[in-house]
Amino acid sequence: MVSRRGFLTGAGMLAGAAAVSRSALAQVPEAPVSENPGTQPPPAPPSGRPYRPVVTLNGWSAPWRMRDGVKEFHLVAEPVEREIAPGMTAHLWGYNGQSPGPTIECVEGDRVRIFVTNRLPEYTTVHWHGIRLPHGMDGVVGVTQPPIQPGETWVYEFDMQHAGTFMYHPHADDMLQMAMGMMGCIVVHPRDVEQLAVDRDYMFIMNAYHIEPGSYTPRVNTMLDFNIWTWNSRAFPGITPLVARLGDRVRIRIGNLTMTNHPIHLHGHNFEVSGTDGGWVPESARWPEVTVDIGVGQMRAIELIADAPGDWAFHCHKTHHTMNAMGHEVQTSIGVDFREAAEKLRRLVPQYMVMGERGMAQMASMHMPLPENTLPMMTGTGPYGPIGMGGMFTLFKVRDDQAPDDYDDPGWYDPPPGTMAYRSED
Amino acid sequence: MVSRRGFLTGAGMLAGAAAVSRSALAQVPEAPVSENPGTQPPPAPPSGRPYRPVVTLNGWSAPWRMRDGVKEFHLVAEPVEREIAPGMTAHLWGYNGQSPGPTIECVEGDRVRIFVTNRLPEYTTVHWHGIRLPHGMDGVVGVTQPPIQPGETWVYEFDMQHAGTFMYHPHADDMLQMAMGMMGCIVVHPRDVEQLAVDRDYMFIMNAYHIEPGSYTPRVNTMLDFNIWTWNSRAFPGITPLVARLGDRVRIRIGNLTMTNHPIHLHGHNFEVSGTDGGWVPESARWPEVTVDIGVGQMRAIELIADAPGDWAFHCHKTHHTMNAMGHEVQTSIGVDFREAAEKLRRLVPQYMVMGERGMAQMASMHMPLPENTLPMMTGTGPYGPIGMGGMFTLFKVRDDQAPDDYDDPGWYDPPPGTMAYRSED
Amino acid sequence: MVSRRGFLTGAGMLAGAAAVSRSALAQVPEAPVSENPGTQPPPAPPSGRPYRPVVTLNGWSAPWRMRDGVKEFHLVAEPVEREIAPGMTAHLWGYNGQSPGPTIECVEGDRVRIFVTNRLPEYTTVHWHGIRLPHGMDGVVGVTQPPIQPGETWVYEFDMQHAGTFMYHPHADDMLQMAMGMMGCIVVHPRDVEQLAVDRDYMFIMNAYHIEPGSYTPRVNTMLDFNIWTWNSRAFPGITPLVARLGDRVRIRIGNLTMTNHPIHLHGHNFEVSGTDGGWVPESARWPEVTVDIGVGQMRAIELIADAPGDWAFHCHKTHHTMNAMGHEVQTSIGVDFREAAEKLRRLVPQYMVMGERGMAQMASMHMPLPENTLPMMTGTGPYGPIGMGGMFTLFKVRDDQAPDDYDDPGWYDPPPGTMAYRSED
Repeated sequence: MVSRRGFLTGAGMLAGAAAVSRSALAQVPEAPVSENPGTQPPPAPPSGRPYRPVVTLNGWSAPWRMRDGVKEFHLVAEPVEREIAPGMTAHLWGYNGQSPGPTIECVEGDRVRIFVTNRLPEYTTVHWHGIRLPHGMDGVVGVTQPPIQPGETWVYEFDMQHAGTFMYHPHADDMLQMAMGMMGCIVVHPRDVEQLAVDRDYMFIMNAYHIEPGSYTPRVNTMLDFNIWTWNSRAFPGITPLVARLGDRVRIRIGNLTMTNHPIHLHGHNFEVSGTDGGWVPESARWPEVTVDIGVGQMRAIELIADAPGDWAFHCHKTHHTMNAMGHEVQTSIGVDFREAAEKLRRLVPQYMVMGERGMAQMASMHMPLPENTLPMMTGTGPYGPIGMGGMFTLFKVRDDQAPDDYDDPGWYDPPPGTMAYRSED
Repeated sequence: MVSRRGFLTGAGMLAGAAAVSRSALAQVPEAPVSENPGTQPPPAPPSGRPYRPVVTLNGWSAPWRMRDGVKEFHLVAEPVEREIAPGMTAHLWGYNGQSPGPTIECVEGDRVRIFVTNRLPEYTTVHWHGIRLPHGMDGVVGVTQPPIQPGETWVYEFDMQHAGTFMYHPHADDMLQMAMGMMGCIVVHPRDVEQLAVDRDYMFIMNAYHIEPGSYTPRVNTMLDFNIWTWNSRAFPGITPLVARLGDRVRIRIGNLTMTNHPIHLHGHNFEVSGTDGGWVPESARWPEVTVDIGVGQMRAIELIADAPGDWAFHCHKTHHTMNAMGHEVQTSIGVDFREAAEKLRRLVPQYMVMGERGMAQMASMHMPLPENTLPMMTGTGPYGPIGMGGMFTLFKVRDDQAPDDYDDPGWYDPPPGTMAYRSED
Repeated sequence: MVSRRGFLTGAGMLAGAAAVSRSALAQVPEAPVSENPGTQPPPAPPSGRPYRPVVTLNGWSAPWRMRDGVKEFHLVAEPVEREIAPGMTAHLWGYNGQSPGPTIECVEGDRVRIFVTNRLPEYTTVHWHGIRLPHGMDGVVGVTQPPIQPGETWVYEFDMQHAGTFMYHPHADDMLQMAMGMMGCIVVHPRDVEQLAVDRDYMFIMNAYHIEPGSYTPRVNTMLDFNIWTWNSRAFPGITPLVARLGDRVRIRIGNLTMTNHPIHLHGHNFEVSGTDGGWVPESARWPEVTVDIGVGQMRAIELIADAPGDWAFHCHKTHHTMNAMGHEVQTSIGVDFREAAEKLRRLVPQYMVMGERGMAQMASMHMPLPENTLPMMTGTGPYGPIGMGGMFTLFKVRDDQAPDDYDDPGWYDPPPGTMAYRSED
């Protein structure tokens, strides 16, 4: 682990680490680190009240230590390297080796003690978004606490009074620290393990980065012009599919810590919003949807029955959020005189010469020379050829032979005869 | 019709057309074409189950052929010329001669067979947004089918299991093809013709284009900076008014296939959201609104009683969405020294000289020399002078003497004495 | 008052004022002017039906005159100077000396007569957003009335048929006039003073400006790139805190007249949306939230029990909306070689040299030389140091010893021992 943190080493940080007293470190629980950007279905809870664990998409859940009846977690805020998708790694800030940080899971009524160590080059705090807790635990710098300086370890301690879905993120230099990837999921399970129980329970946070093609570090002052649209800091085809067995009741908890709304659309099914970061939606207030528009700083839990076998697209419906960076400056040459357009474009980007005239679908299968550490704008390949997507796109894979606890990708769906679109002359 | 398609003719397309086998063409139903950008209230269904037809704003409904109990439609994806409003025509891609394509209407329980012929210069597919159907009919390129290549005709066939409001659009080169205008409405009526019945039932899709003043073809890589905001590819004053008789129950189904939310505001009435593309909203979950914020990829059906006679503004409440292109670079000179501002602006745009000093209302009645094929930014004239609007704006016209099946514009409202604002010295 | 209006004086306005006839002026009620950008809790109504007044955040309520059973108000549309926060004043357009104009309060069933005098250099109208009224009182220029020319006074007269929360704004040269600050709140109280009664009832409108650092007048053609995000034309730290007594039922009515959604987030509590500008939300349709995403042209009334003592952040969750202007062009130098970055930045903005390397938190306490009339991007100081916020941010202050009718800022919260985050070595 030391080696992969090499790029972050600096005088400020080393000094910071030294500032934590030895006696303090002795009391601080271990801070496990993940190096895996895949989805890691968590085991059943080893101690404390029982619950059905949530599956963090392209993430993991934080282990804890029970100490005098209190669940102790340890978050380390630090620079991390995150693989956005195969072929692109970003230099972000996160927790415990990844961005987002590990998911914190506990049970309604639990008392938690969360140690936060700051290994960043500037101060930070942690705000427990949506959780009702004492003023002094709210993590708003200047208002409820002093900043956590580099090298310091601070302790938050409070009761999880309400089951629900929450997020954690800094409330100090907010714009920069969230633009760098600092955030994580919190799930408080109901005390009654059967209450609101579902067969599959997923969670992720939507985030966005502005990383110029060929570079590694996000720009942090961007307000609107983000170009890498991610779920848990992963972009298609780097996002794990969501898997279900035919007939499963599925919950997907989705937080939004970008700068804009994301209308999340699921194919082949309809769903209801069953919860927010404020609590559960009563039955009388629910209605059916195929697209839920999630505002910034909101969490929406959606629920559905996986009643249609297949590979169903699941994505943000803003079409520029299902593409990766690049190409936005290219002019349309649809309908323009071919030779003139070709001449113009050849000077600009030689490879776009033909694309301009007829549309962009060819990009999905083109192999253009890309800058280093840059994802293709339109990418991914399915059983029938190029998919031509990027960003906030993955698949919801429903199978009748998927085992209840199997979260592995079952591969591509093979439709029964007579259930596929066909060429009229075939 | 041949002549107006002249601008789209190219070698690729002719070759494509030739690739459809003769036997296949013999089975393919006719693909009627509309040349009319006005609203065409459809007749009652000539065959199949009865229903009360929807009125597509500035659109029309696709005829069908019944064949062995299956409703057969034929969509032809092709370049089209669409009049955005009198004075501006756009070179778009659409279906059957227009953008959006014709509305597909059928009845819950119908089996449909939809032929899709590709006359575009690149591949496409059709995704039936919101409809629950077999995986292989979902139209996601690479995932559920190969691309429909230029010249090919493909067949989608499935049951319409649920009454509701849906949309169709490509799921191949999505961003470009939707930025070019490829989309259409789908209404599945309930099997019981009285269920959810209303007196007037309208539908349209919101879309947006980035067409530089003086040009005809949209830019297709735009993410945020669209400048032509349209309903069914029409901008005010090109959008037909919505007409109702006093006391009518009115439903308006509105889809959003732009890149941003549109808060749709109706004057003089309040309404409820009664349905989404996921289904109908139960009574217990409804509440009153005057502005519904519709996310991208969402459909909202709103319902109201037309209980106030008059001409009621009905528009997006983002003020730059009720204006046409141009003028956004002009600096304010409100409150600045007149002569200096005048000098600056005269160099930039001679005509803006006076406008800058006092506001922009004069633009609504100015006759500036505009580039060819360009709408004024603020336009339209009512009974009391210039309206100064553009884009996503029209009127909801309620009259006590409008016949139940009359959709013609009744002209301007003439308020009874004593019901109008007046000058205090009058 | 004459002196502070000096900057707006021009030939057009003087001529306009002279055009109001003397007999007309004799009938027009007084138009009181406020010079105070603070929150002014209104007294109980001096005449007419009783109600519990609303508190307009950083605003005030318009006095009225009863005349033959009609409530007469007088709005004067005019250029104003508005203090956005200490250190920055904007040259806006508003009503009666401020932007927003005074809140209009009345009771369900009241008949109102509202005089509108235009002292702007261009025509205007007033639209009563959300109110159901006769066509001729709707204020849409060209459609329901001619423009109110500079110097004219017009009269709107109608019954307030429904209790609720509404807004007023021009419907003539809409984009410019709202970009300049023309808007105000309307509250129609229920006839039964106990119906829907709460202990604290607040209201404000969200607005946004594009004012270049060092200048005073907004740019009026901005579509997306606003840089001053305000509540009732005030930015943090200029926004008054909202105060409540522990256990109070609190309503906050929030309108949005910007160009984008604002997700409004409250710490330490959850709430329900209890009303819109269309009416009240039935109990069966409500659900708990901690962040409500308010679309443009929408009003949302939220309700909660102030059950947690403390100083709770209350803000828009788009992080660039809780910052003031400046700094967005600065490149990240996080993780880049220090000396090279320093060299680059020194040439650009000398003061940013160190900030670039380690994050931006230092800005919250830096004292950079700013252009005249410019707020720091990150500002405000709390009991534990710099808060580093701006724009749409304030505090919700809940105290157990706050008197029921005390709206004064109680100062910073002093948490009981053992309820604050702490350093692990302490």
